[in-house]
Amino acid sequence: MIAAKDPAFESRVRASFAKQRAMDTIGATIARVAPGEVDLELPFREDLTQQHGFLHAGIIATLADSACGYAALSLMAPGAGVLSIEYKLNLLAPAIGTRMIARATVLRAGRTVTVCRGDVFAVTEGGEKLIAAMQATMMSVVDRSGVSD
Amino acid sequence: MIAAKDPAFESRVRASFAKQRAMDTIGATIARVAPGEVDLELPFREDLTQQHGFLHAGIIATLADSACGYAALSLMAPGAGVLSIEYKLNLLAPAIGTRMIARATVLRAGRTVTVCRGDVFAVTEGGEKLIAAMQATMMSVVDRSGVSD
Amino acid sequence: MIAAKDPAFESRVRASFAKQRAMDTIGATIARVAPGEVDLELPFREDLTQQHGFLHAGIIATLADSACGYAALSLMAPGAGVLSIEYKLNLLAPAIGTRMIARATVLRAGRTVTVCRGDVFAVTEGGEKLIAAMQATMMSVVDRSGVSD
Amino acid sequence: MIAAKDPAFESRVRASFAKQRAMDTIGATIARVAPGEVDLELPFREDLTQQHGFLHAGIIATLADSACGYAALSLMAPGAGVLSIEYKLNLLAPAIGTRMIARATVLRAGRTVTVCRGDVFAVTEGGEKLIAAMQATMMSVVDRSGVSD
Repeated sequence: MIAAKDPAFESRVRASFAKQRAMDTIGATIARVAPGEVDLELPFREDLTQQHGFLHAGIIATLADSACGYAALSLMAPGAGVLSIEYKLNLLAPAIGTRMIARATVLRAGRTVTVCRGDVFAVTEGGEKLIAAMQATMMSVVDRSGVSD
Repeated sequence: MIAAKDPAFESRVRASFAKQRAMDTIGATIARVAPGEVDLELPFREDLTQQHGFLHAGIIATLADSACGYAALSLMAPGAGVLSIEYKLNLLAPAIGTRMIARATVLRAGRTVTVCRGDVFAVTEGGEKLIAAMQATMMSVVDRSGVSD
Repeated sequence: MIAAKDPAFESRVRASFAKQRAMDTIGATIARVAPGEVDLELPFREDLTQQHGFLHAGIIATLADSACGYAALSLMAPGAGVLSIEYKLNLLAPAIGTRMIARATVLRAGRTVTVCRGDVFAVTEGGEKLIAAMQATMMSVVDRSGVSD
Repeated sequence: MIAAKDPAFESRVRASFAKQRAMDTIGATIARVAPGEVDLELPFREDLTQQHGFLHAGIIATLADSACGYAALSLMAPGAGVLSIEYKLNLLAPAIGTRMIARATVLRAGRTVTVCRGDVFAVTEGGEKLIAAMQATMMSVVDRSGVSD
């Protein structure tokens, strides 16, 4: 685990997450915050599925992208905002289960650029199954109008 | 433009899209279907934003992923289903505007694997602006239980 | 085409390319430089192949990554260096032919981050064929020890 | 660790690697083969550098792509060939050191598609440092003319 520069990292992450209206709309919540690591959860919902009845790959991306972004933000200095530069998501198995858990970890935290990996698991009665894998690049933004966390 | 194997490609794409409940939930619609090319639209909605008030990068991915998937499906044989293997999305500018348009094109349609690019534009009073770029890999699935379009 | 900030962009790109010893080692040359656009060429060589006799996917990446990096550098201010943050490469068809051409274009040139696409074509007697597609993120680096172009 | 379908997986990986002429050209060797896991090594060479004197990002991709491909092949059935569908590589730190080690692991081995992650470390007197991270999609090819491993 990497040390956080900001002792208030957890409250900062939670306050920013609360402002992400898309998280509320899809029903995602924060399960865990640690320096460089954030887990988000999403209960399965029929109204977020694709044509085969699995959760839509874009909804999985929404969850994993937020987890990666907040893992990155947890290591940034106070006052910095986080923006997604890009991410890549592999879909490994159908997103079916009672809920999904996205676990994100920082691979490298740079001054401007932070790189994260996120694993998404489907939770069923039988346990957890890895269903998607993300590799994401985040940017720290300071003093830009309209961008703060 | 590439020729479609299935003369009914457009009705097949539209029927599958209608089954994607996530599209209805976020408010996306089909703007255009051609062989190997699909455009989707999404009106801006406050309840799909991230912490800075832009549309969430995952919502942009949801739109672009569906556009790429249906561009791929439009060239597949009747009876085939389409699944996303993976995609990569670069966020180029804030997703702000009255609506977003995702334009997807097939780069290469193989027997099993189809590769697409998708460009997402924000529409404002001033015109269109490229705000995100996707490169996606789709798989044709035939005769697999539970997967048909 | 985007305007270059530096009228000497072409000589700057060519001087930096000449310092890339890997380009000389694999036999790549510059075919064209324009603001935000760079084409590189690579003659086919048996000693750069993978196990099936096609050019190795990593060699295709080497060519496309340099093309993208120099397309980005062509739009940067004098004195800036360019570094690859990340790239994604889809392999579309076997890399066989007399030579390969990588054509890179800037999608968006930001202050720090520039996003490019690169298409790689195999040239045969029958013409050109698209064999690989890259989407890459480049970073402008100023005043960092050891990094200049 | 995942079980191999082919007890001769290691000799099959080594035989295919020996046919990759690009590996010999850049000086890469196999350091370790296990079911679903392959490590490759590359001594630092001046003639494979980019303009700042670091190993070229494409050379790092060449090493990581081969490691991922052979991790995937180690779990495939006898007679199958492996092809890279796509990969994404993040560059995390300058590729400087006495040698590089790419460690690849299979995340999911499907009938047709296998997804891998590869971490590349630079070895210096001070130890190992993570310098690049790959996420790659590989395809199993059976009975296709010209493609066997």
